[in-house]
Amino acid sequence: MPGSSIGQAFRVTTWGESHGPAIGVVVDGCPPRIPLSASDVQEELDRRRPGQSGLTTPRKEADRVAIQSGLIAGQTTGHPIAMVVQNKDARPADYEALKTVYRPSHADYTFEAKYGIRDPSGGGRSSARVTVGHVAAGAVARRFLEERFGVECTAYVKRTKDIEADVDPETVTRGEVERTPVRCPDPETASRMVELIERTRDARDSLGGVVECSVRGVPPGLGEPVFDKLESDLAKAMLAINASKGFEIGSGFAGTRLFGSEHNDRFVMKDGRTATATNRAGGVLGGISTGMPIVFRVAFKPTSTIGKAQRTVDSEGKEVTLATKGRHDPCVLPRAVPIVEAMACLVLADHALRQAALRGPETGQPA
Amino acid sequence: MPGSSIGQAFRVTTWGESHGPAIGVVVDGCPPRIPLSASDVQEELDRRRPGQSGLTTPRKEADRVAIQSGLIAGQTTGHPIAMVVQNKDARPADYEALKTVYRPSHADYTFEAKYGIRDPSGGGRSSARVTVGHVAAGAVARRFLEERFGVECTAYVKRTKDIEADVDPETVTRGEVERTPVRCPDPETASRMVELIERTRDARDSLGGVVECSVRGVPPGLGEPVFDKLESDLAKAMLAINASKGFEIGSGFAGTRLFGSEHNDRFVMKDGRTATATNRAGGVLGGISTGMPIVFRVAFKPTSTIGKAQRTVDSEGKEVTLATKGRHDPCVLPRAVPIVEAMACLVLADHALRQAALRGPETGQPA
Amino acid sequence: MPGSSIGQAFRVTTWGESHGPAIGVVVDGCPPRIPLSASDVQEELDRRRPGQSGLTTPRKEADRVAIQSGLIAGQTTGHPIAMVVQNKDARPADYEALKTVYRPSHADYTFEAKYGIRDPSGGGRSSARVTVGHVAAGAVARRFLEERFGVECTAYVKRTKDIEADVDPETVTRGEVERTPVRCPDPETASRMVELIERTRDARDSLGGVVECSVRGVPPGLGEPVFDKLESDLAKAMLAINASKGFEIGSGFAGTRLFGSEHNDRFVMKDGRTATATNRAGGVLGGISTGMPIVFRVAFKPTSTIGKAQRTVDSEGKEVTLATKGRHDPCVLPRAVPIVEAMACLVLADHALRQAALRGPETGQPA
Amino acid sequence: MPGSSIGQAFRVTTWGESHGPAIGVVVDGCPPRIPLSASDVQEELDRRRPGQSGLTTPRKEADRVAIQSGLIAGQTTGHPIAMVVQNKDARPADYEALKTVYRPSHADYTFEAKYGIRDPSGGGRSSARVTVGHVAAGAVARRFLEERFGVECTAYVKRTKDIEADVDPETVTRGEVERTPVRCPDPETASRMVELIERTRDARDSLGGVVECSVRGVPPGLGEPVFDKLESDLAKAMLAINASKGFEIGSGFAGTRLFGSEHNDRFVMKDGRTATATNRAGGVLGGISTGMPIVFRVAFKPTSTIGKAQRTVDSEGKEVTLATKGRHDPCVLPRAVPIVEAMACLVLADHALRQAALRGPETGQPA
Repeated sequence: MPGSSIGQAFRVTTWGESHGPAIGVVVDGCPPRIPLSASDVQEELDRRRPGQSGLTTPRKEADRVAIQSGLIAGQTTGHPIAMVVQNKDARPADYEALKTVYRPSHADYTFEAKYGIRDPSGGGRSSARVTVGHVAAGAVARRFLEERFGVECTAYVKRTKDIEADVDPETVTRGEVERTPVRCPDPETASRMVELIERTRDARDSLGGVVECSVRGVPPGLGEPVFDKLESDLAKAMLAINASKGFEIGSGFAGTRLFGSEHNDRFVMKDGRTATATNRAGGVLGGISTGMPIVFRVAFKPTSTIGKAQRTVDSEGKEVTLATKGRHDPCVLPRAVPIVEAMACLVLADHALRQAALRGPETGQPA
Repeated sequence: MPGSSIGQAFRVTTWGESHGPAIGVVVDGCPPRIPLSASDVQEELDRRRPGQSGLTTPRKEADRVAIQSGLIAGQTTGHPIAMVVQNKDARPADYEALKTVYRPSHADYTFEAKYGIRDPSGGGRSSARVTVGHVAAGAVARRFLEERFGVECTAYVKRTKDIEADVDPETVTRGEVERTPVRCPDPETASRMVELIERTRDARDSLGGVVECSVRGVPPGLGEPVFDKLESDLAKAMLAINASKGFEIGSGFAGTRLFGSEHNDRFVMKDGRTATATNRAGGVLGGISTGMPIVFRVAFKPTSTIGKAQRTVDSEGKEVTLATKGRHDPCVLPRAVPIVEAMACLVLADHALRQAALRGPETGQPA
Repeated sequence: MPGSSIGQAFRVTTWGESHGPAIGVVVDGCPPRIPLSASDVQEELDRRRPGQSGLTTPRKEADRVAIQSGLIAGQTTGHPIAMVVQNKDARPADYEALKTVYRPSHADYTFEAKYGIRDPSGGGRSSARVTVGHVAAGAVARRFLEERFGVECTAYVKRTKDIEADVDPETVTRGEVERTPVRCPDPETASRMVELIERTRDARDSLGGVVECSVRGVPPGLGEPVFDKLESDLAKAMLAINASKGFEIGSGFAGTRLFGSEHNDRFVMKDGRTATATNRAGGVLGGISTGMPIVFRVAFKPTSTIGKAQRTVDSEGKEVTLATKGRHDPCVLPRAVPIVEAMACLVLADHALRQAALRGPETGQPA
Repeated sequence: MPGSSIGQAFRVTTWGESHGPAIGVVVDGCPPRIPLSASDVQEELDRRRPGQSGLTTPRKEADRVAIQSGLIAGQTTGHPIAMVVQNKDARPADYEALKTVYRPSHADYTFEAKYGIRDPSGGGRSSARVTVGHVAAGAVARRFLEERFGVECTAYVKRTKDIEADVDPETVTRGEVERTPVRCPDPETASRMVELIERTRDARDSLGGVVECSVRGVPPGLGEPVFDKLESDLAKAMLAINASKGFEIGSGFAGTRLFGSEHNDRFVMKDGRTATATNRAGGVLGGISTGMPIVFRVAFKPTSTIGKAQRTVDSEGKEVTLATKGRHDPCVLPRAVPIVEAMACLVLADHALRQAALRGPETGQPA
């Protein structure tokens, strides 16, 4: 019932505030004997970390992960994997002035309404810093999916404000994505995005866009047909990422403009396996994976924190003017890429284990 | 872990196949002493029922609900509310010919991959008929929300293919929605939609569109800040509706084209309460309701079943040509309206009870 | 969060009151392709049914089960299995006089405290009649366990008041148990038990005792090591049976009187498999099955409903004298036997599926 | 599905192995604004710590708790409370010799069967060391229960092998319990227990017994009537404690020897409230608290680790003789007392929040 966990079989619980001593996550349910090292996790955290380029917040966080449990000799044991990252550059004092102000489009007011108490320092659990846990857990899920299915999960910046890239989700690689600071695999578009982000940053403003994610190698049969559809759980996971406002899979909103005869994906045989000629479904039918690439997009609003002066009210209802001086990203998209991948891996790992449960143990097998 | 339940505190479990003897749902966790009658439920089922107009499938289903438990003297008791609807017009024979064919963009193939077995009659649990349970349960949730908060939940067809209506989510009423057969509250646009749907039906084709939903009267404070954000659970619920391919809340995908300074909703005082001057957030900040109307949209693909001939393969990999003769909707949008409302009410009722748990019992109160 | 479900992977939800139109259960998560028929379920319900002999309540209930979903051609489909039993002999009027009285050791008072409302007719959800759902669901779990592991689950009356039977849990069979009306496999002790129960019934009194259960064929490895130990979930399931007041596994309370050197079960090889020379553990170590028979006992208090006059108070605090005329068992033990078995099967089936999830799908396998 | 969490509304997740760097727990769902300090938790951990007296293992662990999140200015915030305790005196080498041996009545064999991998160092998650997390979380639950209801939860050693104390659960205090090293509130019996434990330790043997727990001040109405009965969840929680083999509430197994007319608790008015003249029920009826003290007992087997030589087999099936040299308790009872209390508090806190959810928010109230 409390909301800090996700997944049913591959179960993740996060804890920690942006300005407390540390932030952490517990992964329970990862199968035993999956090769895993701290550097598998660190690699993903490094992609999420602030300060990677001039495009992101200058907050300095090394974000070194320490794995506290659940590993023996480089393999998972089947027991909870606890991971902790110390908060090094917490500056609660920066937020002192904001103690009673409701920042526009931030969660200050809603947290106070919910809990009847306010974390005076920098957003607490509403801070994007909590996604450290998402990414660390996602790295474990990714290792499991690679090991058992050879899954490749690749997200990238598809659009920044009005600048959109043309990317083929069937072939895009992580190498191409990591080549540009904005994590857009099309270098020419990426340059224009960078230029726009820098211009926006200098104007003390912010912008949003769309991240697309392609997951190849997912076997057919994952997902539950009624409420826990694979796309349902992906949608839930993506809307849980800070600043996301929308999710679409396959043809998504654009597909609603087609006739059925234009939209349907016909089945064909490919290399001896059942496949579809097109993939407007985005890799799912009836809530269950088809074996085709899972392709979806997530909408991110422009960052709420901007340097421009804004009017708002405080907790006593008084009108105030706010001009933020904190350390923030003008555009969250590049850093959202590893978070989108992490959340996708969490959902897929969970459904892979749920499918193993549904099928149950085989006759005569040891448990 | 199995996927036929939704909600944690207000918990709903559905059962039944489209062509079995009956279909049903169990609602567990509804608070005691909420006024509820079978006609409250029937009213919503009648809106979902096929055959309401020439726009929908001619399948004849009276869909009479029988409440089997959980009520005494017109009030809920706090015990599970079981509701059953008999299937009257099941015609498994209609589907005999489809037994081995993988219908394009249907779940035949994925179900077979998942379960290793195929329900030969009409889709089984992948049929839209299972949403009878969603709607019946949603009617209970709606009564609870009305009773305790005065919530008004109103969905409507916002767009059919390229025909889009201009609707004000702050003022739209159910009366306006029900006035047109297509459930679009703008009568002039509704006429054009009807004409398009009829034309498409006659062409043995299908179309999709967008349903928008506005929920007014939700108190601030509902939703969990990290994984079970209110918008996350709404997204999950909406993507669980048959044929849905996307979800967006507030400014959604369009909002990603604005600068932060254009997008942020500034806080103001309205009637002595904290509110926002605009509502690009769509009623949620940081995963928690703001008290402003919750406004979201759901994308529905064009119906997969079309009368036009289509090529596909069967379970033995043989190419076949398919021309469906079944009874189907050329456009699911009008019937999706009560389903969207039902799912929204389920999510909100669940979070209202979760919030009561988070706050816990007050000091000295009896349990 | 609501309490009408049990199990995580093999998930059971029950509904219905003793004096409503029907009572039912939904089993979600049973693997596909398990052979199952209504008669498999009916056979267990017949063992639970009242009126089997002069030892039990004369309430007449045919308790015919109707399976509403989840089966095709005699096999499970992997979808929810809904089962419904009509209430035929409900006599709410019998309970009219009790409307405001708190019957001693019944749940009248606690239900009113919990729900703020009282089901005036015969106990509602606190009635032993709700165990119809437990037994029906248990029959499905039993079929699964038989099919995949060859599990044999046999419970029996071990003790009635002070009359105790000597039974070998390693060899006892269902045939031996069913041979006597009291479901004690030792015929001579059974006769003495019958005589005591009849004498107690004639004195308008009631008695209790102990049911023992032996489950053979459970593979090693089921159960979770920390909170969801196999014995934890068995204890929970057994304490959920009406009138039960205690649970012990293996040596139980008596074993606490031994030294460790007397109590430890040493490991040996038997038929090429690791086993233990003795089984004081009762088939579990560290919360996980050992492969030895799982042996546990459940304490049932004497039935609360007795014909003798009793003093108590009513909901207004007034002292009243109560002499019940309802139809009740002087001893619940014989009918508790199939309920204990059913609950044990539910727990074991759930853990078998959870173990399949923990191990996850194998490399390269289709889902 | 994985087994390292307990509770639904007050949700606890533990992690860590006995010989890893640290052990920890996350409490999610504790209501905001409950006064809580590290010393509240430390006090309970100090009672659980090894080395408190000559009766317990000489393993040296300071067990200092660090609270990492979820507190502001001495109050809970409603966010996850993460607590970590470093392992200081881990000596994996001590266990090197045991790497392949299946210690009698330990979980070595079952863990290997379950996970297909063995933690070579001292039991891993099967070690009693994991109860550090139980006790830390229980301390938070206790603070909540004290604050909101004034609950008093007091456990004590009721019996050690055959030495039994006479204790009144209606009046016993923590002060009386803590006065003796064996945590038996009857000083004369306590002396005899101490003497027996010392004699057993010197004989390189071990012993078991019974812990009784009394919880006063629980309001009527907690617990769910069908599967999640209050006694069901208490039974589950108690059987999850290492070495426990049985649970009984109220009259328990002894009560099965009474007639109904002797056993029933009649209702009376006490101080204007409904109460029962006796409390054979142990504070629950129909799974729901009555408002009378909740009284239950837990059976603990003699410690499995003994110094005496024992025969067993290793993972290759070879017979070996084992004489343990590790640091272990001859009797776990005194240290089990705070663990029993902690688990009881976890169950009660969870049900208190679940009851708040069941009742739901009141009309017109802010969320």
